[in-house]
Amino acid sequence: MTVLLSLASARALQRVGGRARSLCGRGATVAPEAETAEAPAPSAYVVPKMEEVVSLCKKRGFVFGSSEIYNGFNGFYDYGPLGSELKRNIKERWWRDMVRARDDVCGVDSSIIASPKIWEASGHVGGFSDPMVDDKTTKKRYRADQLFYAELACDDGSSLGCVTVFESEDTEGDAYRAGKKLAKKAGKTLSRPLVLKCLEDAADEDRPRIPPPDAPDRPGDLTAPRDFNLMFQTSVGAAEDNSAAAYLRPETAQGIFVNFKNVASTARGFKLPYGIGQIGKAFRNEITPRNFIFRSREFEQMEIEYFLPPGDDAWRASHARWIDDCRAWLVEACGLREELLGFEVHDKLAHYALACTDITFRFPFGEQELQGIAARGSFDLKQHTDASGKSLEYFDDGTKEKYLPQVIEPSIGVDRLFLAVVCSAFEEDEVNGEKRSVLKFHPAMAPVKVAILPLVKKDAGINDIAAALYGDLKKRYNCQLDAAGNIGRRYRRQDEIGTPLCVTVDFDSLDDGAVTVRDRDTTDQVRLKIEDVVPYVTKLVEGY
Amino acid sequence: MTVLLSLASARALQRVGGRARSLCGRGATVAPEAETAEAPAPSAYVVPKMEEVVSLCKKRGFVFGSSEIYNGFNGFYDYGPLGSELKRNIKERWWRDMVRARDDVCGVDSSIIASPKIWEASGHVGGFSDPMVDDKTTKKRYRADQLFYAELACDDGSSLGCVTVFESEDTEGDAYRAGKKLAKKAGKTLSRPLVLKCLEDAADEDRPRIPPPDAPDRPGDLTAPRDFNLMFQTSVGAAEDNSAAAYLRPETAQGIFVNFKNVASTARGFKLPYGIGQIGKAFRNEITPRNFIFRSREFEQMEIEYFLPPGDDAWRASHARWIDDCRAWLVEACGLREELLGFEVHDKLAHYALACTDITFRFPFGEQELQGIAARGSFDLKQHTDASGKSLEYFDDGTKEKYLPQVIEPSIGVDRLFLAVVCSAFEEDEVNGEKRSVLKFHPAMAPVKVAILPLVKKDAGINDIAAALYGDLKKRYNCQLDAAGNIGRRYRRQDEIGTPLCVTVDFDSLDDGAVTVRDRDTTDQVRLKIEDVVPYVTKLVEGY
Repeated sequence: MTVLLSLASARALQRVGGRARSLCGRGATVAPEAETAEAPAPSAYVVPKMEEVVSLCKKRGFVFGSSEIYNGFNGFYDYGPLGSELKRNIKERWWRDMVRARDDVCGVDSSIIASPKIWEASGHVGGFSDPMVDDKTTKKRYRADQLFYAELACDDGSSLGCVTVFESEDTEGDAYRAGKKLAKKAGKTLSRPLVLKCLEDAADEDRPRIPPPDAPDRPGDLTAPRDFNLMFQTSVGAAEDNSAAAYLRPETAQGIFVNFKNVASTARGFKLPYGIGQIGKAFRNEITPRNFIFRSREFEQMEIEYFLPPGDDAWRASHARWIDDCRAWLVEACGLREELLGFEVHDKLAHYALACTDITFRFPFGEQELQGIAARGSFDLKQHTDASGKSLEYFDDGTKEKYLPQVIEPSIGVDRLFLAVVCSAFEEDEVNGEKRSVLKFHPAMAPVKVAILPLVKKDAGINDIAAALYGDLKKRYNCQLDAAGNIGRRYRRQDEIGTPLCVTVDFDSLDDGAVTVRDRDTTDQVRLKIEDVVPYVTKLVEGY
Repeated sequence: MTVLLSLASARALQRVGGRARSLCGRGATVAPEAETAEAPAPSAYVVPKMEEVVSLCKKRGFVFGSSEIYNGFNGFYDYGPLGSELKRNIKERWWRDMVRARDDVCGVDSSIIASPKIWEASGHVGGFSDPMVDDKTTKKRYRADQLFYAELACDDGSSLGCVTVFESEDTEGDAYRAGKKLAKKAGKTLSRPLVLKCLEDAADEDRPRIPPPDAPDRPGDLTAPRDFNLMFQTSVGAAEDNSAAAYLRPETAQGIFVNFKNVASTARGFKLPYGIGQIGKAFRNEITPRNFIFRSREFEQMEIEYFLPPGDDAWRASHARWIDDCRAWLVEACGLREELLGFEVHDKLAHYALACTDITFRFPFGEQELQGIAARGSFDLKQHTDASGKSLEYFDDGTKEKYLPQVIEPSIGVDRLFLAVVCSAFEEDEVNGEKRSVLKFHPAMAPVKVAILPLVKKDAGINDIAAALYGDLKKRYNCQLDAAGNIGRRYRRQDEIGTPLCVTVDFDSLDDGAVTVRDRDTTDQVRLKIEDVVPYVTKLVEGY
């Protein structure tokens, strides 16, 4: 597993001002009913604090901790009414764009539990582990690659031993602050900067001097790192003597490889280059799950194995194209802010890997991997061929050759993309001099696409029009009908959950058969014929 | 768990002739290019054989056994290119109709692994089990409720002891045939009919005379039934001393109950009666998984908990309405044949249950539960209130009362619905005197919605039109472009995978800007303007 150190990430966040963009592109601007025509005051995008994101997710029904009434269950999360819609939107859009709309990709949906032989062949039984260390006294367990230690040298040339801290956005600062306390106690002055080393790479002779992170007074009280396998294990079948140990899959990819022949022989037009895509749950028994839904123990993946003929040119070109396509999709289909995206080219690779590039996202807790695009050669197909004794070779009709294809693997986690979408959308701006909290979701991502607002609650004519339009939209999209409170308050309610369009039905609607459509981001309003509303929404959401 | 005995199901299958129906409803019929205008010869629907269904599913890329290259993994299945589309169509349509389009239902998506306290409170740790018996000699394990035994009385008044058989479509016949062999050996004649008893209910004094199903010569060699818990167990967390035993959820329902308060406080317009829907994987360690994807160990559920105020009238009315709505949905949205559907009203109920009605489907292996609609009272909320110490009461704004809601629970398995959809669609008819194998999927279910067929492969004009139309449709639906082989063969290929529409682009298209649209079921053809094709397909698939 590759760990991207936020320590190493020095890319500064570009602050972009005046980002208000119009979702609507047509129709004449008319005088709005409760807001002035003034666009929101330009706001600088600021990466939100993680506490703000977590609190918003809970408060508005996006994400709850699992088993809350039983005081929680660490590393697991439930998606609420808005969250389940947003998550579904992400998956549906991915499937549409990456599988259905492409001629060279088809889908599969393989089981979470499968033969354990798959995980022996893939190398996961032997090697899918994180290094852990134990606190000998408290028995607490830590990931060795997430702990850093530093020698505390003082200005007078003496040393106060070592201090241990967790990896963070400012690991050196954390270590310095911890060291300073110790220095103060000892009446000394700490030298700076501190030189941090990862605990995983600690030399044996350093170990007696390294304390646990929560106990600087117990140097040497951490064990040497040991491997901890991240696969959840269970037992399948009832028979006492042959119930099989099995694993919950730690990735969806292997379900694609073992079905390579099945798919190649049944998918219409299967001809390399050709990809197989899959969306599904995967599980990893993380030693220290953290950062909310970014690193949880149960998560969902969207993966493609894109099979290619042999040759360096073939994989290089395809790898480059997938990196471009994936990044473009994240911006155009999911609405991620370009200024928050980055790349990380791996320099440490597994022995079989040809290349791996991550598309990174600047989360509140640092710049981290969002999507990995790996060139894995033919390693996986080879492993399964060897272990199963069944050839997974492909006969190329064009060249009349038989070969084991190589693959490019674009792999993204639904949950971390969910988090990136929320963080990207998270904004505060000003409308009419008042602070506004708004989620600027891409229309395709927005959990609620349209809110229908009858201007007055008690007019039968207005309510009939609103109900009919709502009924029409509801068949297609998740929508809300909201008749409660003044119109400004209703707008705010929809802004807060990121609804791109509000449609107001007013007294004029009774005469002119038109409604007012308000854009969340610009607060611009246009007047549309009622029959034009559905195509207008469709165009905005689907792009056609 | 309720077991519906096929023994008890005597409902005869109604054979319905001349079922050809037109998918298309507008446009003038024109002379077809390779088929005569004659509709397919009326065919009587015959429930297909299970082997036929399994073989079709594998051959055409609907369903593969899990881990096939490793000789399989019993009770688990993978969905192939067409299967993953069909499965997705089922889930998307359910979510659209049952969650998004309803004002009184919202969705959640809870984790598969959660606090084990949930399963203690729900009663699953204590009671979610099947009765199993062991063969004392071979150690084979069986479900006691799926084994039947019969006394073998002979015409001369003597007895040959007992014989044991598996439950089947013709359990008595199986037992008779097994008994006849024994009688023949003994030179006797067996009396008929045999009286079958379920092994689960066997009296202690009978047990020494009951043999294992595969060894009639070893009476008394089965143990007494014992409970076997069906939940898969695993272990969460790395710390040696506090790693928690946890379970893979055996149903999605409890993830709804424990989130009741979270949802009630965040879902806009939450006001009883109100339902919470969820789609997700569930797992049961079946002792003897069987009947293909009907009873597998890993499966997917679509469940709603529909919360109601207290009172008998409330639940009775809601229960009746859900039964009607669910049945109508299965017919109208999924295209299940009405003549294959039935009802089963449970007479044995759990102590807390108020009622349970199954919608049954006549599968090739017998009439079995497809969807259960249970009135569960407030049992689940009560259990979680008691176990967690957190009140799950609801404050009713209308009556100003606080109460624990009761629920109606419509629950359906995606995989068994998948199987019902395939069985319902499975047909052989005759076109132009030739046998035709066709899958008559409802357009919403069909994995491929439209095939675009350029009449000739090499005409640039025809191919350009075909490619443009294909590109347009591909954004919306899973479609195929097929230019290979004569047109009749291409039609057959699409019939076999259940594509509702074939669109042929021919030389006339270059002049009149129109194409020929052929209906799978009637083979009727209509000529449509190219720009009318997308709305035509949309209407057929979406109903709007």
